[in-house]
Amino acid sequence: MTTCFPTAGHIRAAHERIKPFINRTPVLTSATINRMFGSDIFFKCENFQKVGAFKARGATNAVRSLDHAAFEKGVATHSSGNHAQALAWAAALSGANAYIVMPSNSSPVKVEAVKGYGGRITFCEPTLSSREKTLLRVIEETGAVEIHPYNDYRIIAGQATSALELIEEIPFLDTIIAPVGGGGLLSGTALSAFYFSKGIRVIAAEPEQANDAFRSFASGTFMPSVDPQTIADGLRTSLGSLTFPIILKYVNEIVTVSEESIINAMKFIWERMKIIVEPSSAVPFAAIIENKINIEGKHVGLIFSGGNVDLNNLPW
Amino acid sequence: MTTCFPTAGHIRAAHERIKPFINRTPVLTSATINRMFGSDIFFKCENFQKVGAFKARGATNAVRSLDHAAFEKGVATHSSGNHAQALAWAAALSGANAYIVMPSNSSPVKVEAVKGYGGRITFCEPTLSSREKTLLRVIEETGAVEIHPYNDYRIIAGQATSALELIEEIPFLDTIIAPVGGGGLLSGTALSAFYFSKGIRVIAAEPEQANDAFRSFASGTFMPSVDPQTIADGLRTSLGSLTFPIILKYVNEIVTVSEESIINAMKFIWERMKIIVEPSSAVPFAAIIENKINIEGKHVGLIFSGGNVDLNNLPW
Repeated sequence: MTTCFPTAGHIRAAHERIKPFINRTPVLTSATINRMFGSDIFFKCENFQKVGAFKARGATNAVRSLDHAAFEKGVATHSSGNHAQALAWAAALSGANAYIVMPSNSSPVKVEAVKGYGGRITFCEPTLSSREKTLLRVIEETGAVEIHPYNDYRIIAGQATSALELIEEIPFLDTIIAPVGGGGLLSGTALSAFYFSKGIRVIAAEPEQANDAFRSFASGTFMPSVDPQTIADGLRTSLGSLTFPIILKYVNEIVTVSEESIINAMKFIWERMKIIVEPSSAVPFAAIIENKINIEGKHVGLIFSGGNVDLNNLPW
Repeated sequence: MTTCFPTAGHIRAAHERIKPFINRTPVLTSATINRMFGSDIFFKCENFQKVGAFKARGATNAVRSLDHAAFEKGVATHSSGNHAQALAWAAALSGANAYIVMPSNSSPVKVEAVKGYGGRITFCEPTLSSREKTLLRVIEETGAVEIHPYNDYRIIAGQATSALELIEEIPFLDTIIAPVGGGGLLSGTALSAFYFSKGIRVIAAEPEQANDAFRSFASGTFMPSVDPQTIADGLRTSLGSLTFPIILKYVNEIVTVSEESIINAMKFIWERMKIIVEPSSAVPFAAIIENKINIEGKHVGLIFSGGNVDLNNLPW
């Protein structure tokens, strides 16, 4: 069997394709934080990305990779989170239809956001089987192309462009840390580190309460999480059949963090850096606070995955 | 009588003096916000300044302008807010002592911050007369030099450097909007607009509940606020004898906004821009939301004054 992971060429092409539409997000540093941890940390701020999360990269790459016939039919997905918004936004920007299946208990803020981007919403029961069945029905009716949130090489190549930009901007990194949920961002990050750097160590951070990637990575066998409960809502999903092999091959280490650390890390970032990151974004920094990763004297890239938070419902 | 406002040379010298120690804060834009208001708004982000507010500029300029004898004695002020932190920080950075008089009801967060920067705190009753009396006593005992939060030309020249940087970076601005409390930031901004641009319109925004600048500007006579109640805690102070004449001469307009607008504007900035600004920072944007300033088709500079917020006590 030949693996056909996205190549350096795929990632570069994705970057060229999406560049006119996405933000080249800033890389921030904090003198206080560097002093506290005795290292140089470079925060790649996807919270400032379009739709407030790195998901805009993959969604744009996927939509703009479609051939004409597929494009005319539109795109579809089931998602209650950032991917729903990103796909609706990317489709609207390109003039395609986006059909989004959302569980009936999705937060009104997210439903409004998807509607605001012109997404056509079909509600379903809040179970995975209802989501999948409803999506199948929508696809049958519309002929739309399914764009999976992470288990899709177009998505992975798109998400890889964040680390590509970070490595271009800070060429002397020793380590990159990213959060892991379904593994789209992490597998893309690992591929970019492999192709575009000389041996950057790639470390993933995951909530203890949703530690499927940690367990799967340790055992070498896919071990999904069952109904994980974590405040890091973007990381409740389990790895996919396309993301897991890339992670197994190119990621150096996966560490886990407690819920308390995630909340503390998130609040600390808000207070010290004056920027808004969502709980999933705070997971890698939680691993630093928990001393799970040795970064002393190192040049560390850390990806803040997004900044979509319900300000009326903060965890402190 | 000769006026002796800070000159262009004073402001340039202040900038050279403080540059190695402060952040050159970024200027951010939001495509969504620009589309909503039909204008190009450039947000100068002093929330990313050292100690989280523009106050670091003036304090650094004041401390580093002292002659040797004064420097040896140290600096003193009474403040419960950002100036206390900024002065303690600037003094520590230079190796000088800072004596800070704080009312006994100051928030523990702010007391801790001042202590963290090595400030020597004397607590007093939470009244203006107790603050002033206690400060006099501290100065008698220590020989320290008083550094007033705004009624001091060294402070005004320091605060002016934010607008100087903004005008340098975005040379085609038509309008600058800043919040007004004691007037240090506003008078400095107005001087920089006068010296370093060709006729930028300078507009100040003030809470209705603390509208001394609005009333003083309209009448031409100093009319202080008495016990103003506004969430914009940085703007509860009234203009000073040095800031008012500059404002009268160089500011084009002062508008006021409601408390509700301030909170809405603050939340809107957090949600859309993913950055943390304090209520005082949100006041100019509240004026835009309230349609108090015509910015259609204009290139507008807007100064976010700071980002120090108690995350445990948000106003929504």
